[in-house]
Amino acid sequence: MDSVLFDPKILENIDFQPAECHYNPPINAINPGEDLVLRPLRISDYDNGFLENLEQLTDVGKVSKEMFEDSFKRMKSSDGLYYVIVIENLVSERVIASATLLIEQKFIHACGLRGRIEDVVVNSSYRGRQLGKLLIDALALLSKQLGCYKVTLDCRDEKRGFYESLGFKKEDGNSNFMQIRFH
Amino acid sequence: MDSVLFDPKILENIDFQPAECHYNPPINAINPGEDLVLRPLRISDYDNGFLENLEQLTDVGKVSKEMFEDSFKRMKSSDGLYYVIVIENLVSERVIASATLLIEQKFIHACGLRGRIEDVVVNSSYRGRQLGKLLIDALALLSKQLGCYKVTLDCRDEKRGFYESLGFKKEDGNSNFMQIRFH
Repeated sequence: MDSVLFDPKILENIDFQPAECHYNPPINAINPGEDLVLRPLRISDYDNGFLENLEQLTDVGKVSKEMFEDSFKRMKSSDGLYYVIVIENLVSERVIASATLLIEQKFIHACGLRGRIEDVVVNSSYRGRQLGKLLIDALALLSKQLGCYKVTLDCRDEKRGFYESLGFKKEDGNSNFMQIRFH
Repeated sequence: MDSVLFDPKILENIDFQPAECHYNPPINAINPGEDLVLRPLRISDYDNGFLENLEQLTDVGKVSKEMFEDSFKRMKSSDGLYYVIVIENLVSERVIASATLLIEQKFIHACGLRGRIEDVVVNSSYRGRQLGKLLIDALALLSKQLGCYKVTLDCRDEKRGFYESLGFKKEDGNSNFMQIRFH
């Protein structure tokens, strides 16, 4: 039986109305475009091009089926912390876009939740079909629905305008993203 | 019985040597200063000033013991995703500093792990004792020990110099932190 990362109803129940103004022609989470479906990651997506598509974003490296399934199960068992969504082409049966929402449990803000959007990628053959926007809107609206007090992301300079058009802001004096890379 | 968020041996086993050059006078994770101990968060820290200290960082709001314990248990059950560390004054038996490391499971970078440092706070009466540095160094070294390919954080402008002194970098063209606040 195919294992799904989270209940598909969670996506179906997103109120997409606040984001509808972003789309021309109109698409949304239920109708992402001809032959396309937006859905939670499944464990069988290892064989459907999920990782190959992710390679268009960054280095994925060699991932065995066992490694993939271990990571999938760890995410699934985390009690609602990971929401990886994919867009599949139903004709080719290939994953052509994906993004992740990570929910962080806090003590601050009355034991609040914070959403983080990560690893957003749309296959280069599908650019211009508003699918990047759709992934971000879906995950930002999902964060809100899950009760997060905010949703955040970090990005390269050339993506700033895109995220600003979807409501993300660099706050004055509080917008520094810093890192140490180990390998 | 008092419940601890993670095995204290994980902290004891951090090789602190790469960070020793940051301290004058010398302190480290095992010897954080007179009357002080660095240790994992315990569920009993609800009664030891953990939340009151966190209020020096940001809004904590009204957190009942039940809310605190629910959040604590969710973190503890997440199989090694949350590392909240505190510094306690053993004489007053109060938490006087804390910080969180969140580990994110990825599919990219060969199903790699990414560390995130969050919610760093040192009680204002204890500033100048190098404790902020100690929290950050401990969590950055812990990230590395846990196998993370990188550790990241976001911060206000006035903290940039501090984090740079500990090895964090704003990468050219890739250092934008953006957010949507819901409430």
